Amino acid sequence: MRRLIRKRSEKAGLPPGTLVYVGEKKVEKVKISIIDYDENQITEKAAATIEECFPFKDKPNVTWINIDGLHEVDIIEKLGSHFGLHPLLLEDILNTEQRPKLEESENYIFFVLKMIFSVDKDEEMQAEQVSIILGPNFVISFQERQGDVFDAVRDRIRKSKGRIRRVGADYLAYALLDAIVDSYFSVLENVGEKIEDTEQQLTVNPSTQTLQLIRKLKNEMIFLRKSVWPLRELISGFQRLETSLVQQLTGVYIRDVYDHTIQVIDTIESYRDMISGMLDIYLSSISNRMNEVMKVLTIFASIFIPLTFFAGIYGMNFENMPELSWQWGYFGLLGFMAIIIIVLVIYFKRKKWL
Amino acid sequence: MRRLIRKRSEKAGLPPGTLVYVGEKKVEKVKISIIDYDENQITEKAAATIEECFPFKDKPNVTWINIDGLHEVDIIEKLGSHFGLHPLLLEDILNTEQRPKLEESENYIFFVLKMIFSVDKDEEMQAEQVSIILGPNFVISFQERQGDVFDAVRDRIRKSKGRIRRVGADYLAYALLDAIVDSYFSVLENVGEKIEDTEQQLTVNPSTQTLQLIRKLKNEMIFLRKSVWPLRELISGFQRLETSLVQQLTGVYIRDVYDHTIQVIDTIESYRDMISGMLDIYLSSISNRMNEVMKVLTIFASIFIPLTFFAGIYGMNFENMPELSWQWGYFGLLGFMAIIIIVLVIYFKRKKWL
Amino acid sequence: MRRLIRKRSEKAGLPPGTLVYVGEKKVEKVKISIIDYDENQITEKAAATIEECFPFKDKPNVTWINIDGLHEVDIIEKLGSHFGLHPLLLEDILNTEQRPKLEESENYIFFVLKMIFSVDKDEEMQAEQVSIILGPNFVISFQERQGDVFDAVRDRIRKSKGRIRRVGADYLAYALLDAIVDSYFSVLENVGEKIEDTEQQLTVNPSTQTLQLIRKLKNEMIFLRKSVWPLRELISGFQRLETSLVQQLTGVYIRDVYDHTIQVIDTIESYRDMISGMLDIYLSSISNRMNEVMKVLTIFASIFIPLTFFAGIYGMNFENMPELSWQWGYFGLLGFMAIIIIVLVIYFKRKKWL
Amino acid sequence: MRRLIRKRSEKAGLPPGTLVYVGEKKVEKVKISIIDYDENQITEKAAATIEECFPFKDKPNVTWINIDGLHEVDIIEKLGSHFGLHPLLLEDILNTEQRPKLEESENYIFFVLKMIFSVDKDEEMQAEQVSIILGPNFVISFQERQGDVFDAVRDRIRKSKGRIRRVGADYLAYALLDAIVDSYFSVLENVGEKIEDTEQQLTVNPSTQTLQLIRKLKNEMIFLRKSVWPLRELISGFQRLETSLVQQLTGVYIRDVYDHTIQVIDTIESYRDMISGMLDIYLSSISNRMNEVMKVLTIFASIFIPLTFFAGIYGMNFENMPELSWQWGYFGLLGFMAIIIIVLVIYFKRKKWL
Amino acid sequence: MRRLIRKRSEKAGLPPGTLVYVGEKKVEKVKISIIDYDENQITEKAAATIEECFPFKDKPNVTWINIDGLHEVDIIEKLGSHFGLHPLLLEDILNTEQRPKLEESENYIFFVLKMIFSVDKDEEMQAEQVSIILGPNFVISFQERQGDVFDAVRDRIRKSKGRIRRVGADYLAYALLDAIVDSYFSVLENVGEKIEDTEQQLTVNPSTQTLQLIRKLKNEMIFLRKSVWPLRELISGFQRLETSLVQQLTGVYIRDVYDHTIQVIDTIESYRDMISGMLDIYLSSISNRMNEVMKVLTIFASIFIPLTFFAGIYGMNFENMPELSWQWGYFGLLGFMAIIIIVLVIYFKRKKWL
Repeated sequence: MRRLIRKRSEKAGLPPGTLVYVGEKKVEKVKISIIDYDENQITEKAAATIEECFPFKDKPNVTWINIDGLHEVDIIEKLGSHFGLHPLLLEDILNTEQRPKLEESENYIFFVLKMIFSVDKDEEMQAEQVSIILGPNFVISFQERQGDVFDAVRDRIRKSKGRIRRVGADYLAYALLDAIVDSYFSVLENVGEKIEDTEQQLTVNPSTQTLQLIRKLKNEMIFLRKSVWPLRELISGFQRLETSLVQQLTGVYIRDVYDHTIQVIDTIESYRDMISGMLDIYLSSISNRMNEVMKVLTIFASIFIPLTFFAGIYGMNFENMPELSWQWGYFGLLGFMAIIIIVLVIYFKRKKWL
Repeated sequence: MRRLIRKRSEKAGLPPGTLVYVGEKKVEKVKISIIDYDENQITEKAAATIEECFPFKDKPNVTWINIDGLHEVDIIEKLGSHFGLHPLLLEDILNTEQRPKLEESENYIFFVLKMIFSVDKDEEMQAEQVSIILGPNFVISFQERQGDVFDAVRDRIRKSKGRIRRVGADYLAYALLDAIVDSYFSVLENVGEKIEDTEQQLTVNPSTQTLQLIRKLKNEMIFLRKSVWPLRELISGFQRLETSLVQQLTGVYIRDVYDHTIQVIDTIESYRDMISGMLDIYLSSISNRMNEVMKVLTIFASIFIPLTFFAGIYGMNFENMPELSWQWGYFGLLGFMAIIIIVLVIYFKRKKWL
Repeated sequence: MRRLIRKRSEKAGLPPGTLVYVGEKKVEKVKISIIDYDENQITEKAAATIEECFPFKDKPNVTWINIDGLHEVDIIEKLGSHFGLHPLLLEDILNTEQRPKLEESENYIFFVLKMIFSVDKDEEMQAEQVSIILGPNFVISFQERQGDVFDAVRDRIRKSKGRIRRVGADYLAYALLDAIVDSYFSVLENVGEKIEDTEQQLTVNPSTQTLQLIRKLKNEMIFLRKSVWPLRELISGFQRLETSLVQQLTGVYIRDVYDHTIQVIDTIESYRDMISGMLDIYLSSISNRMNEVMKVLTIFASIFIPLTFFAGIYGMNFENMPELSWQWGYFGLLGFMAIIIIVLVIYFKRKKWL
Repeated sequence: MRRLIRKRSEKAGLPPGTLVYVGEKKVEKVKISIIDYDENQITEKAAATIEECFPFKDKPNVTWINIDGLHEVDIIEKLGSHFGLHPLLLEDILNTEQRPKLEESENYIFFVLKMIFSVDKDEEMQAEQVSIILGPNFVISFQERQGDVFDAVRDRIRKSKGRIRRVGADYLAYALLDAIVDSYFSVLENVGEKIEDTEQQLTVNPSTQTLQLIRKLKNEMIFLRKSVWPLRELISGFQRLETSLVQQLTGVYIRDVYDHTIQVIDTIESYRDMISGMLDIYLSSISNRMNEVMKVLTIFASIFIPLTFFAGIYGMNFENMPELSWQWGYFGLLGFMAIIIIVLVIYFKRKKWL
Repeated sequence: MRRLIRKRSEKAGLPPGTLVYVGEKKVEKVKISIIDYDENQITEKAAATIEECFPFKDKPNVTWINIDGLHEVDIIEKLGSHFGLHPLLLEDILNTEQRPKLEESENYIFFVLKMIFSVDKDEEMQAEQVSIILGPNFVISFQERQGDVFDAVRDRIRKSKGRIRRVGADYLAYALLDAIVDSYFSVLENVGEKIEDTEQQLTVNPSTQTLQLIRKLKNEMIFLRKSVWPLRELISGFQRLETSLVQQLTGVYIRDVYDHTIQVIDTIESYRDMISGMLDIYLSSISNRMNEVMKVLTIFASIFIPLTFFAGIYGMNFENMPELSWQWGYFGLLGFMAIIIIVLVIYFKRKKWL
């Protein structure tokens, strides 16, 4: 099981704003990539040092700085001091156990949220923290490892698909949020398939393994819910922000991503209901099968135990047992036994056990 | 099982506003029908191309354009650009996995909602997305396939039943919403009958099949709830709109359809309660029946196993077994066995097992 | 089982305001009774036709028109057009599946609510719809059949008990609401007694019949809840109305009936809790009894199966079985068997199975 | 089981404000006691008739009139008319099934609440209704029987402990509320002990009696919850009152009693959780024990039934059974049986049944 | 089990503001320590008497007075009267069963909250009450025993780590709250590990002990929830305070500790979900195992009971049993038995019981 709280206690006692990366190191080297664009031109570069990003701060173009890998704390620190970010905010970026939230300041808006993915269909879900800072003409995004969720956005910028090159940094931030929320749908489809498989197993042949599947699904939904639920608040907060950083036209797009978030949450709740129903069904079908087993036992035992008793009677060695010397005693007993069998079979048929 | 999320992920990465139809193609050819009416006259026509609808936009009469089938994306696109609809809205029309919602803009009000129906009583429920656009003097409705829910409205327009011909486009939009909400009642009656049937099975002869029925009902209610619940918000939003598109007199009708929606939701919740109770009853009656089976086994075994033991005793071949040569040994033993049987029968009667 | 939604779908497709009575015909003939009173005088009459009620509309006295039986739609229609009632309101009166609600208009206040009663203690609960219209100086009430709930109010008017003759129509409307809410208490007492009986059965001798009782109680509470819950909203809405139809002094009485409604709802919730607890207790005691049965079986089988085996051994016909010819072989074996019995009895005592 | 609604229906149909005592008569004679005090002096007397209380109404001192026993309706009536109390309020005092509530009027504040106590630890909880009227310089309290909860307050007045003699009637009303809320804590401690006892039984030796204990605890918590929950609203309403009857300094004390009420409610909820958990544990341990029983049976039966079969084989009387005449046939068979036993024992050990 | 309410009733009847320590005496001697600091200098001392603290009240530096041990009531009393604290507040400090809350007064802010810790991983959780008073330039904290949670804060003050020496008393109060909330994370990690262990047990080999573990975890979560849930309200109240005691810059830090509190509560809720799921899994796997046991029994009994019957038949002593004298009768019977075994084995294989 994935622990819900991890290494959080390592930080206990440190003054707030102390920068400690609490996650595991997921990439070898921190990768910094810069995309600078306006409607007419685009510049893309991979920065070797964080200092290369600094000149872009004051250029009028929209600049997107993406940082993959969080374990080199001083990079974050330098970036923070150049772009004027609050130490608590930097701490939140590095504390990958952060609850999704939105933080507004005078010069920027800060988002922390979770990217959920499962490497493989049968693997457990994993969560990665993504932080996004939206400034007047720049967006800085932080990921724990190199992901492909943002590739589609990158592509749209390069090929100037849709409105993205014609509008400001706020639209870019929206596009990143949207890409993350969109990625939840594929996770949910995955879960949906698993639920379908498990339901089929449940109908056809429920086993201990089915129980384990249900248990895993249940825990996954708890995990997913914990990661996605706060997003609702985050995006509705984004919608209500009164700031010059967000242009009015972007409003309708934010409402769109809000709708998607609600839909994700609705689906999670429906899945939770379904999975919890599956456990009841499981218990019922186990009981059902026990009933079957018991009926077989009872039928066998109830027919043959009395018969064995009668055979036992005439296996006794009493000297004075008149039936033993009757000409048709043996065959008479066999007939009597046949009658008992018939009576019991009728009795069990009536009880619908046969 | 119907998946709750379907093909949604296909769209991941596309810029917002990209028009992709995510549903299945449910009709061969897109069918466009136009009804144009005022109090005195009515024109009905089936349009071959979408361009035929365009002139109606600026006519003072009320025009209802109905489009069955969503797979020809360019029809939607042309319509959108002529009537000035936002690309995100067009995307919502085509994305048939949309959550029911109301979107207000300066020139029109946009509704997405679900039509629920079951082709056959024993079939699974199906949902179809319906989008309605209410403009100053027109209503445009989109359905995935040709349905009969709107036929009654069409009929009322043709025969000028009720107020419909005397009032504006807002009343027409209300009438369509009302027709959809009304159709939920027949779905719920259907569910009610199924619940009744299942309850009867539960009382008379619960089987594995009963369990499957309960499971299906449960999932159907989850599905129904997910589709209907957001409607409450939608219609209460419609009620609160302050727009010149809705005349004041229509308000009382909207309140009426709101009441119906609440009643649908109440009934769904009550059904959920009932179905969840049925599962408990099922489990209890399975346990009860197991008890019955066990009692039969126990009575048989407890009576005949001891008797067989006594028969076994006198079937032994010891040379020195004085009882064997007693004159009345055999009959004495039979009498002793009869006493054992009587004692045990009394014992089980006392325990109320017989 | 009582269906929660009944015949509602018959109305699908009809224009709103179409008058159709959806309930069953519960009385032979519609009965119209009029009581007209002020502090000094009282006139009571049974009207043969609805037209006889019309003159009372504009008289300064308080007039109470009570209509039992809803199947003659034109009576309702005439009344509606004379008293200026909205067609949707008339539709609600006839649609006996209506959710309890309050509707305010300029000239009157309209209440729909449910009267719950059980003809007989062991019978299922039944609900009847009651509609009340409060005008400036009249109250019109509609019932599906002749009831006795309003008799006490009639009596108070006739005998001028309490304030009723000295105050206006709003107090009369309050008195009718109060009579209905009061009638819930007797239904709840009835339920309370049933719960008590079932709990006793549960303690003494739970059977399949007990399970059926619990199931019925559970469904009754779902039904009751669905009928009473909306009342809270209705009466709190009545309290908050700012209308000249309700005099300020009546406020304290409305608050009183509100308190009673809350108490009814509280009690329903408590009963639901209790009933749901009873099902758990039932399941537990079934399991408990199964345990008892299993123990008896296990004790019998575990004692006598080994003994029978030993008897079987010495019933074998091997030529060379030295024990058979021992002088005390038989008695030795009997002694050995006695020891086995003693050991097993001690073992089972230790396990607390005996 | 204590019925949650009692004799309430007796009052159905009576005009509101009719005074009927619905509880049982719990004391022989109504007892009226008066305490009149200011900072310097105190007068205590037991009044023989209610008229003795009347002069205290207009005295500037604080007067506390306590009435034990509610069955003499005319006492309440006279008191009400002298002190100017609304008839509905008097009705609430006598209707001991009243839901806890606060009612504000121009001249006084009226509280109804429940005193909970259990005569004996193993007895069922009982509730008694207490009504308190706070006027400008008097407090009137009504109890169903003579209680000792208010004795501590009486004592503080007599000995002038704390602020009570220096402040007004509002503080006295607070003190009485506080005494009642404090008494809940001892009831809860009692429940806590019972839970502890039951949990121990559950761990050591769960029996049918344990199940009954859990059931009783569950019902008690439902009862307690129903009585205490409305108190929250009552006291928070008291806090928010804007009235000259409550001095500002008393505010901090009311907040204190509010905190206690919340704590009582929190504890009730926690206990409910615990008790509901206990039922699950009970079911699990019953299942567990059944498992134990079944294992014993299975082990015995699986070992001895095959062995008995083999003994049965060689007990047959076929003429041609070569094994019977083998020199070591008997001992060989015994050895073979020993091997079977060993194999089965190993098998069961592996399955961890032994 | 830890009782949720303890010794609370001892105080029943005492006037409010009476100082009684209701907890157990947890330290030998009350320990008073003072830290007085500004940006440049720091004074630390252990005070022998409470009077030594008094001079610090009016010094401009920030002073932190920490008191470990609450059983010497007069110390609290003297402190209270010198620092002008309300008697009810002092009572709350001593009443260690207090619900976490925030109380604002003109001159100070008062916090009560719970410190949770488990001495040992396998030990039960324990709670200790911590009270904090924030005045204009001082903080007074009260603990039941000497703890190490505040040591990190002390250390930061001594070494002037972070901002703590440069800012006011409000930041110190924040730092103490933060230290307590941080300590919850380590408790939750501990719980997380226990859940993981128990889940593993559940998968591998569920036993009665597992059930006890689940029960304990469940009760712990109830306890934890009751202690932490009110904290949300407390800290959000702190955030909303409009007081000169809290500087604006501290706001962002309070929001940070609020986020942590929400995260703690989220995690508790997720754990509750998980634990409640574990109980269902437990029940299911017990049923599963019973099924296994029953199958083994049924297979053994169903195969050997019929065979024993046939052996019994030919063990009878009838004189006229022709089969007995057949040459191949014995071997024929053995063959017949072998066929029965084969048939039954195939039957059970088909049923997937083998």
